[in-house]
Amino acid sequence: MRVGIDVGGTTVKVGFVDNYEIKERLVVKTTKDKLFEDVCEKIKEFVDLKNIKIDSIGVGLPGHVVGTVIDKLPNIGIENLDIKPIFDKYFPNIELKATNDANAAALGEMLADNKVKSAYMITLGTGVGGGLVIDSKVRDGAHANCGEIGHMFIDFVHNYKCSCGLFGCLETVASATGIVRLAKEYYDNFETKLKKDNLTAKEIMDAAKENDELGLFVLNMVSDALGRAISIIELSVDVDAFYIGGGVSMAGDILINRIKDNYKRYAHYAIKDIDIKLAKLGNDAGIIGAAYLS
Amino acid sequence: MRVGIDVGGTTVKVGFVDNYEIKERLVVKTTKDKLFEDVCEKIKEFVDLKNIKIDSIGVGLPGHVVGTVIDKLPNIGIENLDIKPIFDKYFPNIELKATNDANAAALGEMLADNKVKSAYMITLGTGVGGGLVIDSKVRDGAHANCGEIGHMFIDFVHNYKCSCGLFGCLETVASATGIVRLAKEYYDNFETKLKKDNLTAKEIMDAAKENDELGLFVLNMVSDALGRAISIIELSVDVDAFYIGGGVSMAGDILINRIKDNYKRYAHYAIKDIDIKLAKLGNDAGIIGAAYLS
Repeated sequence: MRVGIDVGGTTVKVGFVDNYEIKERLVVKTTKDKLFEDVCEKIKEFVDLKNIKIDSIGVGLPGHVVGTVIDKLPNIGIENLDIKPIFDKYFPNIELKATNDANAAALGEMLADNKVKSAYMITLGTGVGGGLVIDSKVRDGAHANCGEIGHMFIDFVHNYKCSCGLFGCLETVASATGIVRLAKEYYDNFETKLKKDNLTAKEIMDAAKENDELGLFVLNMVSDALGRAISIIELSVDVDAFYIGGGVSMAGDILINRIKDNYKRYAHYAIKDIDIKLAKLGNDAGIIGAAYLS
Repeated sequence: MRVGIDVGGTTVKVGFVDNYEIKERLVVKTTKDKLFEDVCEKIKEFVDLKNIKIDSIGVGLPGHVVGTVIDKLPNIGIENLDIKPIFDKYFPNIELKATNDANAAALGEMLADNKVKSAYMITLGTGVGGGLVIDSKVRDGAHANCGEIGHMFIDFVHNYKCSCGLFGCLETVASATGIVRLAKEYYDNFETKLKKDNLTAKEIMDAAKENDELGLFVLNMVSDALGRAISIIELSVDVDAFYIGGGVSMAGDILINRIKDNYKRYAHYAIKDIDIKLAKLGNDAGIIGAAYLS
């Protein structure tokens, strides 16, 4: 059985994966101290109890990772930690691989999509993340920064300041936070049933589905930024498919269709016919992808 | 010996390559009819005469290529042609590989640069081309369009119409043609010793080196577009190095340094320290790269 581990800010999700399906699951609370010892212990207990044979372990981590060395997991507060000695102690001679969580999710989605050999996953959450898979292998990149597409300079219209210090980054408009920011910016220009206070990206996307003027305007602006970004990424690396995942992608077809329309406006004629689709696996993508890291 | 073939609009350059060096050369005139039969015959004559043993043959082609099948070479007028049966007739059982010429050049430059495992080459000529190499292997891409970065939407300032039909493509400002276009656009705004008629990109770059106001303004605008494009490509695919080649790159250090300065303005903090350098091999890059296609 392969073990796929998806480390998140509040919980660590462990899956025992066979034939691309999660057969058993464990959840461990995320802590700053001794997190990986804790995870290993829980896994060990479980496999001993259930008499499971582990073939390999893969870990998706929410931050910058080089090989099995964590550079930084900002939301958990772990830095400069090689997880290999920890896993080796509990599971000697079992292969361990690690990568960024967005890359793991990209691989998971791709494995669920038969025809596809290379893919880019774009995760629209609090920020915007990305993951690249080529020939069924996750690409971490020469500096382990492959897929950090949330910080591409894309929005030359508003040029909002990003948390990274730059201006006009994709995630300043295409993340959940960015969607709320845009709705507030244009609030007074449109008829809307939305309330300005405590707005959420979900409410704005739901309003767009009901033809709310402000909702539709924001949806189009977000899709325009994403369509432009995808057209540029596609020329840079030319993959079979793009998957759109993360909380914002729950908006579903209205978002995907609007992204496709905008993509076509920016796409060179040779790349007009690519697949842009909703990610299917949700949270399981990261677990399954981690299990198949190579 | 490996054979590397670089097919150009006026001549086909053939190199017999060993240990990353071109040991012997042949030049064949480019023709629309029976071009590859012609090239094969000349190679066959030469290897028979010199008693050379060929191990593999690689071809770089100026257009869209899928495997060994030419989709279109617009400047030569060849379409829908599989070159494998032709080479097989003259050189049975010898491995044949083909790719786009920009990809071959990218591989050639990378092989001349020891530490590098992945690289992007940007060719600034009449248009702007690109080639990507990952793990010492050329990436043609899922639709054989990888590296068509000349058609990224980058210039939102002028939004000039491109030959491809889109607006604001990188090559509308960063190619030799684009450089002349910008100099004409801003001609009346600056003190300059340049003449408006029959301007060339070389004259404009030379003027910049002599601190000509117009020349410097155009140089900065071109470098800004390239710096922005490189920052986006780097986040998309994260390579070790970028090589800048093609006729415009003859401008040398002044261009590279200005591109680096502008790159840093747009680059996320995690990717500030990448290598951006002048391509070294000139026309030989395409021959050597073709010889090592795999």
